[in-house]
Amino acid sequence: MTNNFFERHKATLERAVEAAKTRGYWTPYNENAKSYPETAAPEGDAAFKARLNKKFELNQPGEEGWVGAERSPWGFDLGVQYPKTNVDQLIAAVEKTIPEWRKAGVEGRVGVCLEILDRLNKRSYEIAHAVSNTSGQGFMMAFQAGGPHAQDRGLEAVTYAYMEMARTPGQAYWEKPQGKFDPLKMDKTFHVTGRGIALVIGCGTFPTWNTYPGLFASLATGNPVIVKPHPRSILPAAISVEIARDVLREAGFDPNIVTLVADSADAPVTKDLALHPEVKVIDFTGSTQFGDWLEQNARQALVYTEKAGVNCVVIDSTDDFAGMIRNLTMTICLYSGQMCTTPQNFFVPKDGILVAGERKSFDEVAQALADAVAKMTGDADKAMHLLGGIQTPDTVARIDQAAGLAPVVLASQTLTPASAPDAVIRTPLIMKATSKQSDLWGHELFGPIYFLIATENTAESIAIVKNLVKTKGAITSGIYATDETIVDAMEDAMVEAGVALSVNLHGGVFVNQTAAFSDYHATGANPAANACLADAAFVANRFRIVQSRRHTAA
Amino acid sequence: MTNNFFERHKATLERAVEAAKTRGYWTPYNENAKSYPETAAPEGDAAFKARLNKKFELNQPGEEGWVGAERSPWGFDLGVQYPKTNVDQLIAAVEKTIPEWRKAGVEGRVGVCLEILDRLNKRSYEIAHAVSNTSGQGFMMAFQAGGPHAQDRGLEAVTYAYMEMARTPGQAYWEKPQGKFDPLKMDKTFHVTGRGIALVIGCGTFPTWNTYPGLFASLATGNPVIVKPHPRSILPAAISVEIARDVLREAGFDPNIVTLVADSADAPVTKDLALHPEVKVIDFTGSTQFGDWLEQNARQALVYTEKAGVNCVVIDSTDDFAGMIRNLTMTICLYSGQMCTTPQNFFVPKDGILVAGERKSFDEVAQALADAVAKMTGDADKAMHLLGGIQTPDTVARIDQAAGLAPVVLASQTLTPASAPDAVIRTPLIMKATSKQSDLWGHELFGPIYFLIATENTAESIAIVKNLVKTKGAITSGIYATDETIVDAMEDAMVEAGVALSVNLHGGVFVNQTAAFSDYHATGANPAANACLADAAFVANRFRIVQSRRHTAA
Repeated sequence: MTNNFFERHKATLERAVEAAKTRGYWTPYNENAKSYPETAAPEGDAAFKARLNKKFELNQPGEEGWVGAERSPWGFDLGVQYPKTNVDQLIAAVEKTIPEWRKAGVEGRVGVCLEILDRLNKRSYEIAHAVSNTSGQGFMMAFQAGGPHAQDRGLEAVTYAYMEMARTPGQAYWEKPQGKFDPLKMDKTFHVTGRGIALVIGCGTFPTWNTYPGLFASLATGNPVIVKPHPRSILPAAISVEIARDVLREAGFDPNIVTLVADSADAPVTKDLALHPEVKVIDFTGSTQFGDWLEQNARQALVYTEKAGVNCVVIDSTDDFAGMIRNLTMTICLYSGQMCTTPQNFFVPKDGILVAGERKSFDEVAQALADAVAKMTGDADKAMHLLGGIQTPDTVARIDQAAGLAPVVLASQTLTPASAPDAVIRTPLIMKATSKQSDLWGHELFGPIYFLIATENTAESIAIVKNLVKTKGAITSGIYATDETIVDAMEDAMVEAGVALSVNLHGGVFVNQTAAFSDYHATGANPAANACLADAAFVANRFRIVQSRRHTAA
Repeated sequence: MTNNFFERHKATLERAVEAAKTRGYWTPYNENAKSYPETAAPEGDAAFKARLNKKFELNQPGEEGWVGAERSPWGFDLGVQYPKTNVDQLIAAVEKTIPEWRKAGVEGRVGVCLEILDRLNKRSYEIAHAVSNTSGQGFMMAFQAGGPHAQDRGLEAVTYAYMEMARTPGQAYWEKPQGKFDPLKMDKTFHVTGRGIALVIGCGTFPTWNTYPGLFASLATGNPVIVKPHPRSILPAAISVEIARDVLREAGFDPNIVTLVADSADAPVTKDLALHPEVKVIDFTGSTQFGDWLEQNARQALVYTEKAGVNCVVIDSTDDFAGMIRNLTMTICLYSGQMCTTPQNFFVPKDGILVAGERKSFDEVAQALADAVAKMTGDADKAMHLLGGIQTPDTVARIDQAAGLAPVVLASQTLTPASAPDAVIRTPLIMKATSKQSDLWGHELFGPIYFLIATENTAESIAIVKNLVKTKGAITSGIYATDETIVDAMEDAMVEAGVALSVNLHGGVFVNQTAAFSDYHATGANPAANACLADAAFVANRFRIVQSRRHTAA
């Protein structure tokens, strides 16, 4: 039965393998919401509303009571209750699924993963509402990043897992010459085996995008997966797990190969799960503090972490000032800086920059950016879709505290759109600082908080960014420079520091966006993450190969 | 210049890539010592003798004095002195080589690695003498395992590294449709960067075979390598490092991309090296205790370990009793059980086994094995080549202590060959035990110490082995059974426990031997090792990919 799934999606997989090799543009999941069937939007809306103020039934082992307190940053409580889980009972049940999932074989497992992704794609509208109303992302961003783009990253993980598993044949024949004697002849069998139970710990801001890579990488390689979403963003994960369990059941497998463990902020269970001796693989996205704790303490498991960092852009010169400002404005406004890829620091020489050969002062650059951001966020009912809601009260407090730290170029405003009067929306805060004030900008201030930093010159800007990446980590970096020798110096520095670089973005690509199959997300080479999405290293150690051999029958 | 090396060995690399995919028999390095040029043997002998009682000059940074106290298990002191190293000074110099080695590029680095391997192959006789006179291996085994087979494993590591690095293109073009608007067009560059400085910690018994995989995997992927050999087996590593430095120098690189740090048992420097913040990758072969210490403490590095285990063979039935006994006799005698792959425990039902349908008692099986081993080790001057010398006084003491533990089936003898009167040679000790006496056989007793263990039945034998592999680790396992359902049960158990299985070996393949490009050595799936030689997981995380992107020029 599972073979049908593999055959059904084989052409997609083959195209995905090709895309991973060439790393050009490719996706099977359309990011254009309008390209979906006409019924998709109303059905997704209805499906989301039908979830509200109800129990989300999963029928998993070890259920004992209910949990759930999600509140939409758009201003209402979701009221969804999820099963509370007895971790030991659940893990005992999941443990039992390991042999059957191993014996499903590479194609059996990959087929199930591809079918799950296909169904997730068809449910993109429902998931978009769930993502938007937990993360606070504007609906269109929630649709794209939480739907097709997240599915792309899931497919990318399956693709790399497939390539790595398929590179070793299931059987081999070995014949060693023995001079004048008969050759030695052996038949060999190679079994792909998972590591054990995998745990995926989701984050609040990107509850599907940051969950699918680990989920699908572990699942494809033979590890049953327990999904532990952030207590503020359970619903998108719960819908995804429900779909996965449906597919598993239909394929004749134990649905407990994929399970959900929901918890609450006041009674967290993540540490219990992460330290369980049967948990052998962990994927985590979230704070540096908890990521470091996992790496130090969950020693029985392989731990893949994406943590915090301080992303920076160096501005030296440009021939397209308007394009640069437009591009950076979008970068700054998008989801109010609540992306792990958004730059916080913009380094500008204190004597200004060259624009098509003419000098613009530091303050002119600052003012141009502030004006553009102010303009883009002026209309609350329009801006809310771009800015999204602020997900946590901590971030709101951080904005208010930060405003007292340094001279303000653009103050943060509270927006109250008529269409969502209870939403929590704040416009970006932009401040000025000097290159000496690393106590201000030298660590992550999560949210829409930005520094324009005056440096001696671009060489100092590059040196500061390199050091910051190496010590505090970063997921992205950017430079604007018209002189190729300066771009080369930045590229060399960023390669040594280990962070992806975007050069002279002035069009429709933003430093905080990456495309699956082409852009690697994070590098695994600096403190912000010990892995990247997705490469061979992300999947190759999630399974092992166990062989048997015997003499070839005469 | 380096490109010449890549071009020179490209055909070998292509054939190696093919071999890694099909996993049939292949090697470019002939294991038949007689196949080498006539001058190779006398030149190798002379080169080895010329090393004795001299200073081994390496001209590395941070040299301060001399160290070295190797004694051949064949009965003489080598008298070779190696530079003592100031670790901080050396590491500072090695650190400086990182950018140039990265910029050499994939083909530049792989070419250098292939040239080093080719030269190591041509020096196989000299290295065989060095291996034999440090490890105690008989000359022919030292030639094969220390020469061509070690080179095979090195080449295998380079091959996997090359495949993983080459799978991502250096450049890519990305074009994303924008409906009726112009597409977004980006040029992307992908840089392969190493992790930092790599450390390879060698073992005393296989100073090249267990060193080359980590050395070449790290080197090919862009990490300068410091080789830290076991104080009893420095010479084979020193010759290898010297060759590597010659090749690097010829190719125009800083020779400090490969360096040696020798130390002594009373002033070890391994911990200082392993904890150095600049050391980012560590390969280790040796004791479980030190391997565990590295995994727990060298947190700044990726740590690949091969540690101790307890290898087992289950004997249920056979149609070729003579072949089985002959095969196991060889397995037991080869290098006196000082291989990490040699089985220690042989589980036999207490009511005996079926041989071509007729029952042979437990004691008949035991006696047949004891007689065959006694016969094979009867002539000291012949047996010495097979048994090799006992490498350490600890192992000699372990044999003597073990003899009092359980009923002895075959006592260990001290052999004194006329041709090597000062050699330390002991014949195998074989004892009887029951399945209840896991206090005797449930842990590794390194050396020629073996147990024949009476079980209730084969089902118990399999269950015990499965549990032992899961808890204590193992690198090999074997079974003799004529009933396919029993073989299947064993294979299933070994796949779940995570250890390679050899079935019904009665010819010229032994459970303790593996062939590069076909057999994986260790699995990384049980406590004996956290990695295997060699697969994608062994290489894929030793480097990271850092990208840059920019708009395609109009």
